[in-house]
Amino acid sequence: MQTQVGIIGGGPSGLCLARLLSLSGIKSVILERQDRAYVEARIRAGILEQGMIDLMRRAKVSERMDKEGLVHDGIVLTFNDREERIDMKSLTGGQQVMVYGQTELTKDLYDAVLKDENITVIFNAGDVRPINFLEGKPQLQFFKDGQQITVDCDYIAGCDGYHGASRASVPRDMITEYERIYPFGWLGLLSDTPPVHEELIYANHKRGFALCSQRSHTRSRYYLQVGLDEKVEDWSDERFWEELKKRLPEHIAAKLVTGPSLEKSIAPLRSFVTEPMRFGNMFLVGDAAHIVPPTGAKGLNLAASDMYYLSTALIAHYTEGRDDLLDRYSETALRRVWAAVRFSWWFTSIMHKFNDDPIEHKIQIAELDYLMSSTAGKTTIAENYVGLPFDPTFK
Amino acid sequence: MQTQVGIIGGGPSGLCLARLLSLSGIKSVILERQDRAYVEARIRAGILEQGMIDLMRRAKVSERMDKEGLVHDGIVLTFNDREERIDMKSLTGGQQVMVYGQTELTKDLYDAVLKDENITVIFNAGDVRPINFLEGKPQLQFFKDGQQITVDCDYIAGCDGYHGASRASVPRDMITEYERIYPFGWLGLLSDTPPVHEELIYANHKRGFALCSQRSHTRSRYYLQVGLDEKVEDWSDERFWEELKKRLPEHIAAKLVTGPSLEKSIAPLRSFVTEPMRFGNMFLVGDAAHIVPPTGAKGLNLAASDMYYLSTALIAHYTEGRDDLLDRYSETALRRVWAAVRFSWWFTSIMHKFNDDPIEHKIQIAELDYLMSSTAGKTTIAENYVGLPFDPTFK
Repeated sequence: MQTQVGIIGGGPSGLCLARLLSLSGIKSVILERQDRAYVEARIRAGILEQGMIDLMRRAKVSERMDKEGLVHDGIVLTFNDREERIDMKSLTGGQQVMVYGQTELTKDLYDAVLKDENITVIFNAGDVRPINFLEGKPQLQFFKDGQQITVDCDYIAGCDGYHGASRASVPRDMITEYERIYPFGWLGLLSDTPPVHEELIYANHKRGFALCSQRSHTRSRYYLQVGLDEKVEDWSDERFWEELKKRLPEHIAAKLVTGPSLEKSIAPLRSFVTEPMRFGNMFLVGDAAHIVPPTGAKGLNLAASDMYYLSTALIAHYTEGRDDLLDRYSETALRRVWAAVRFSWWFTSIMHKFNDDPIEHKIQIAELDYLMSSTAGKTTIAENYVGLPFDPTFK
Repeated sequence: MQTQVGIIGGGPSGLCLARLLSLSGIKSVILERQDRAYVEARIRAGILEQGMIDLMRRAKVSERMDKEGLVHDGIVLTFNDREERIDMKSLTGGQQVMVYGQTELTKDLYDAVLKDENITVIFNAGDVRPINFLEGKPQLQFFKDGQQITVDCDYIAGCDGYHGASRASVPRDMITEYERIYPFGWLGLLSDTPPVHEELIYANHKRGFALCSQRSHTRSRYYLQVGLDEKVEDWSDERFWEELKKRLPEHIAAKLVTGPSLEKSIAPLRSFVTEPMRFGNMFLVGDAAHIVPPTGAKGLNLAASDMYYLSTALIAHYTEGRDDLLDRYSETALRRVWAAVRFSWWFTSIMHKFNDDPIEHKIQIAELDYLMSSTAGKTTIAENYVGLPFDPTFK
């Protein structure tokens, strides 16, 4: 097989990137280890920044998102029984975020990609290996139905997540990895119950962090900070709801509508960055290069700037014969990556319980107290939450 | 002996408090363990916020300070060879700080206090003990020239610092103490050399933090972050200057004027808060109740709000017969204390090297990068550095 851009991974990054390229006539092959149903069912992010919304529109896959997505102007923080709102829209001069589940977004992308003549998707592609990308002759090898297949391509985009083959194929001495593991995880519960509040609620509590999120007016997603040794089997729905109520101010807990869980799972929290993000003719995109803790909802939105920069650079290469943007990709993408890693770390730090030393909670409350008392303080949260801008000089 | 307010400690807090009370006709006795020369020679803070400046003026001891103090409109932060300025004055709507050494301020206070008929200062007061303050009959016992003396008073002000007798006299079950120890200290050097820059420079560097401070146009105070196991004897002046140069951007290091040290010492860094700050008829003021790391120069300036609140409350008691402010003292003072503890901790965290994990420095640089790129971010530093306001309802 032969194509222009070989994409490893059929999640939202790979799909959206392929669409952006296709609209400039660039052909790609997407290799996905799983089948479509599996990928579409993966429960991930639910909050889209303006940058990601704009990419979906540019990729011409935004029709349902624009109809069904819920635009949010603010978020709520609670601490010590106080409820405070960050009015993002007014603090940032009009910026907002949108609630639209990653499962829905992935479906919309597949609907478009599978009809797109410039894009070939290969599901159940086993043992994918990017090779020869440092020598200028990149190839993707994989197994399909027991047979080995090779794709010759000009460039490889590694959109295959933290555990994927792309980063793992880079010689160790070419890569620097930065990592921070957090001493807790998030226990998530999905239920077909109306959200407790129309906006998201981030709760700092002495018992630990809680988040009231949502996917729609009828589907809620709640999270509890739990110890790394906790097992999901030990958390009955009833226990989950009881603990969640304890971590919310009473007047909010009183409004909580509970119901059976559709899904429950525990995810660890990690900050991780790979430098650089380009290795010869292979480029890393999204989770393949960086992971942030979910506080702040930056995961997919950080992949968005990677997709934007890489698609812009590849389009400049194919349509104008310019490689300067490809050369700037890694450095430019990493600047926004570190900003989001910083914010996600900070928002995690201020909202979670890290240890039993009571000065920790006192300092967190003092910081929240200060931030809520200061327009500048609230603005720092708002402008990071809605997403820092893409580099306007990258064009 | 008998007085209205018994003050333990003849440092700036005790002296200034006595003056503020005296100007409303309230009598006090100050017990100081050392002699005057010793207290005046103690090298401490050098940066006064507006709140402390106002108190000095109100205490009618500001003549020399107003003449010799250097008003600063901004501070400089350096990181990764970048130099960035926080223009505090423009970011806070006109607020500034003043460089005026605590040694000078203490001299000015003694000049006034020792002439003040309402104030008795007893130097070399040994083994001071506050007693019966929980029973409504507070007394101060101490030894002078081998003889035990007792002072009967209405109220006791504990202005005797972290190691003083006032907090130590409180029954353990009445007090909650919060503490954080930092894994490094500050090595300070005082020299009669012109400051390297007209404003203070706070330097984040991979080798550790450095601070270029000053006491006047001809006297500089520099600091280096050092390990807790470092000994001052191992730091020749030459070694100090060499290390300082390495931690500053080259163009600043090139301007550094070095010279023999007048003093060199290592101080540990600590965050510490006592709750409450009132125990019966005894009130804690300043370092006796709280310690912050010196990053941000909050120590004396935090004592200033305590002095302000306590003097206001005592004046209301003696001149209007109102005790409501005395009852609010602890809660009101602690709110500003925690805000400054938070800022001092944060500013310390972002500027110092805590460990060798390279992600730490990357996140610090990402945070500084973000803050410098954002007006809101810079404002959060500026408004905390110039000092959060005193509670306007406390009157």
